[in-house]
Amino acid sequence: MSIARKPNPARRSEQSRQAIFKATRELISEVGYANVSIEAIAARAGAGKQTIYRWWRSKAAVVFDSFLALSEAGRQEEMMLPDTGDIEADLKLVMRATVTEFADPDFEAPIRALNAEIINDPDLAAQYREKLAGPVEEAKKARLCSAQRAGQIAADADLDLVLELLYAPLYQRWLHRSGPLTPEYADALVDLTLKAFRP
Amino acid sequence: MSIARKPNPARRSEQSRQAIFKATRELISEVGYANVSIEAIAARAGAGKQTIYRWWRSKAAVVFDSFLALSEAGRQEEMMLPDTGDIEADLKLVMRATVTEFADPDFEAPIRALNAEIINDPDLAAQYREKLAGPVEEAKKARLCSAQRAGQIAADADLDLVLELLYAPLYQRWLHRSGPLTPEYADALVDLTLKAFRP
Repeated sequence: MSIARKPNPARRSEQSRQAIFKATRELISEVGYANVSIEAIAARAGAGKQTIYRWWRSKAAVVFDSFLALSEAGRQEEMMLPDTGDIEADLKLVMRATVTEFADPDFEAPIRALNAEIINDPDLAAQYREKLAGPVEEAKKARLCSAQRAGQIAADADLDLVLELLYAPLYQRWLHRSGPLTPEYADALVDLTLKAFRP
Repeated sequence: MSIARKPNPARRSEQSRQAIFKATRELISEVGYANVSIEAIAARAGAGKQTIYRWWRSKAAVVFDSFLALSEAGRQEEMMLPDTGDIEADLKLVMRATVTEFADPDFEAPIRALNAEIINDPDLAAQYREKLAGPVEEAKKARLCSAQRAGQIAADADLDLVLELLYAPLYQRWLHRSGPLTPEYADALVDLTLKAFRP
């Protein structure tokens, strides 16, 4: 069939998208968010500048999609936290996976560069919360709610505060490279947080 | 006496030092650590470039001294945490003061810029820990030790972890502007941390 020999536009378009995301993440790691240009992304990705402008309305939009794409494959499952009925076991599983991710140089370099930008740029911080952190936090809160209904976490617990107690120490330790990121550390944070919010 | 009319070199030298510190902090807020030059500091402070090179061996050294100077006057007292025998009351006093400091735009702007640099620069992170964070943490740990002896905190508690649970949520909330910094928030962090580390 002649159709098999023709280039597949949908497939080429997806390859181009992935090349643009990869180039964006690499450039952010190398030169920092502020110094990345659409021109440089296009050059590295082997794509046309106009293609990028047609698909995204700003540099920030490409950057966010490139981070979303990083875990797009596993995204559907990731957005639902495991719910075996045992909040301690489920949180330890998730926190250990997070620690492993942050300890991976390939994963952490672009995230680190993005974090440095977010600190100085309130607009970027707001976008980050809305597009990346927000949806993930909602998924986590859904799991915590289920633990509240099961009487494993105080019914009046502020879930924003639960997430801060659980994740902020790990985030700060990673950001400042101030201590080891180990499975034992992940477990300790879960144990302490559950004790602090015990009914 | 003629000596009263002569310029006082020690005093002029201290004024010059303070002008250099102020210029350094202002420039970091305005253009970011990476873009601050010794030339620009000298020009804004009305000092000679050679003076700066004579007093400090690097840009990082001037920057750190300029942050140390920010609380130099209160430094001696700050380094000792209050010890009334009531760890809850003492920590709430200190945490409320920290929240107030981070909510002050004049104080927070240069600290924010410095934090963004620390994230991308492991050497700067190590210097920050050694010169600024380290001594303050030792003072806090001394107070926590005293609470351990009084049976108010578990004897086997990891004091690094106590400090992370207490301060990292506040730090992250400030860094990401993700929630209000209030006295109630300071109190909540103290209550939760003490519950998590209860003997």
